Amino acid sequence: MTHVVTPLQARAPSSPEPDALTRLVELVGPDLHACNRTIIARMDSPVALIPQLAAHLVAAGGKRLRPLLTLASARLCGYEGARHVELAACVEFIHTATLLHDDVVDESLLRRGLSSANSVFGNKASVLVGDFLFARAFQLMVADGSLCVLEILSRAAATIAEGEVHQLVIQNDLSASQQQYLDVIRGKTAALFSAACEVGAVIADRPEAERRALREYGDHLGIAFQLVDDALDYAADEATLGKTVGDDFREGKITMPVLTAYHAAPDAAARAFWVRTIEGSSQQPEDLDRALVLIREAGAITSTLELATSFAGQAKQRLDIFPVSTLRDTLADVADFAVSRIS
Amino acid sequence: MTHVVTPLQARAPSSPEPDALTRLVELVGPDLHACNRTIIARMDSPVALIPQLAAHLVAAGGKRLRPLLTLASARLCGYEGARHVELAACVEFIHTATLLHDDVVDESLLRRGLSSANSVFGNKASVLVGDFLFARAFQLMVADGSLCVLEILSRAAATIAEGEVHQLVIQNDLSASQQQYLDVIRGKTAALFSAACEVGAVIADRPEAERRALREYGDHLGIAFQLVDDALDYAADEATLGKTVGDDFREGKITMPVLTAYHAAPDAAARAFWVRTIEGSSQQPEDLDRALVLIREAGAITSTLELATSFAGQAKQRLDIFPVSTLRDTLADVADFAVSRIS
Repeated sequence: MTHVVTPLQARAPSSPEPDALTRLVELVGPDLHACNRTIIARMDSPVALIPQLAAHLVAAGGKRLRPLLTLASARLCGYEGARHVELAACVEFIHTATLLHDDVVDESLLRRGLSSANSVFGNKASVLVGDFLFARAFQLMVADGSLCVLEILSRAAATIAEGEVHQLVIQNDLSASQQQYLDVIRGKTAALFSAACEVGAVIADRPEAERRALREYGDHLGIAFQLVDDALDYAADEATLGKTVGDDFREGKITMPVLTAYHAAPDAAARAFWVRTIEGSSQQPEDLDRALVLIREAGAITSTLELATSFAGQAKQRLDIFPVSTLRDTLADVADFAVSRIS
Repeated sequence: MTHVVTPLQARAPSSPEPDALTRLVELVGPDLHACNRTIIARMDSPVALIPQLAAHLVAAGGKRLRPLLTLASARLCGYEGARHVELAACVEFIHTATLLHDDVVDESLLRRGLSSANSVFGNKASVLVGDFLFARAFQLMVADGSLCVLEILSRAAATIAEGEVHQLVIQNDLSASQQQYLDVIRGKTAALFSAACEVGAVIADRPEAERRALREYGDHLGIAFQLVDDALDYAADEATLGKTVGDDFREGKITMPVLTAYHAAPDAAARAFWVRTIEGSSQQPEDLDRALVLIREAGAITSTLELATSFAGQAKQRLDIFPVSTLRDTLADVADFAVSRIS
């Protein structure tokens, strides 16, 4: 299994070949450093708890994947100004606000390998600091001054919330179709990937074809990324990934591996198991092991990853419109890397 | 005690004199109806739970005070277009999002006399639908297309969140000063009143002096309004107001009446009572009665209302810059009405 490398994490000298995300970080290094400085500066507030909670999130790091996409997309489009740095920070603020509200909603105990903000600071602070970051993101976008960028990111924010509510509606509902589930993750995850990429083309003043190419690259990459995340929840090494295995299961959350395993259940007992543990949310500690066995027997991890690979492939194709460059190749490799995190 | 009259509530034929809010509703009646239609139309989503939860909020009604301020301010400034209707809906969406998140945060059982959204739909839905409404508000502002309006309302949104976090920080802290408390409510309540009013002057393209006048009118009105709300929590008739008496007390919430009573505590026992019930949050059912007695003996309701009256007076003064009109007089009367809700 490949480590998820964060931008701030030095690559070990002995590592043979840097992964695509690490190479992308290197390609836009100065931009990313500027973005990290902006994130810290713009999280400031006379209300000390806000930067305190912000510092907790900054320490947790994260991959900065979404702001990286904005920075790289802008450069791919030949952008030479500085607006992409503030806008990448906006994208990260929207993402962080979503995480904070997700942690409250899901009562997650772990996020990025550290205690989630809500378990340290309380649900109240997480909801409100999330609101602050969301509002601050819009302030920064307004200061940037592009109504087109504002349109893209405000639509993404509404779509994310719709996707999250949609997920809530089908949560615990094993009759949900795989297409419904794809709709959910297209909203809750892919919308921000897509917007993050499109913004790069917009500020570079590129034609609609390139905007659409990057928008669709982000959309497909986001779906692939979320499907792999879903698979990791039933396959990850906790120490490596910083994510508790079985989080989704314990929350009775419908994800692609569960839907697949349920539809492929070998007998009534297996179906009853899923109904009890997911729809009924009545679980025993030993249920996770049975879930892992049923998922493995159904080939649900494999098929989820095959679907993710297909979306990653479509993402890569969208980049063909751009001239060959190291940056273009690296963005294509990031799509492969999103899938290869698990193997 | 005066009833809080909602726009949708018909005035009884026998009532002698309509209050200021009712008169304001009548003055901008068609605008308010258009705004209510916009609110319902723009809350729609393919995810059915969103309009369902929205319908719950619409049924609860509310005074629509903030959008009324946008509608009336625009008209006061001679505005004759239609943009104020959508922007008033934005203001109400931001307010509703805040309420939804407040209800989660405070675990309120009652809101506007009906069950709060979170007790019916769950905390998860309330957080996420709040996020949706907030994002939708920004989409509508972007469609309106004024960066100046976006600047005012995104700043207000950030200030509201800062005020809410600030309130969280000083919650349960009896050493907070009255000034700190005023800072909190200037953020969490007055910022949106202020922005709602200023937007009216902006779309009417009025000079800075009038923008400032309306901004400050809203600010002072909002502070007066919140102080009266604080007082009502220790003085209201539950059946009349649709608000549980003692909600703030049971949540150990610092408000102006509590700060005043604590600082005026007649003896160590009284101070210890406040420390136990507010800072320690260790309460017995009979504690509310003792709190009410201590607050009455300290004259804390009276002094809170005197402060509210002073802010209401300052709000009215700010309107002097505008030519005399029925609308101007009614907005001035609304400031008096905000205070006269309790008597």
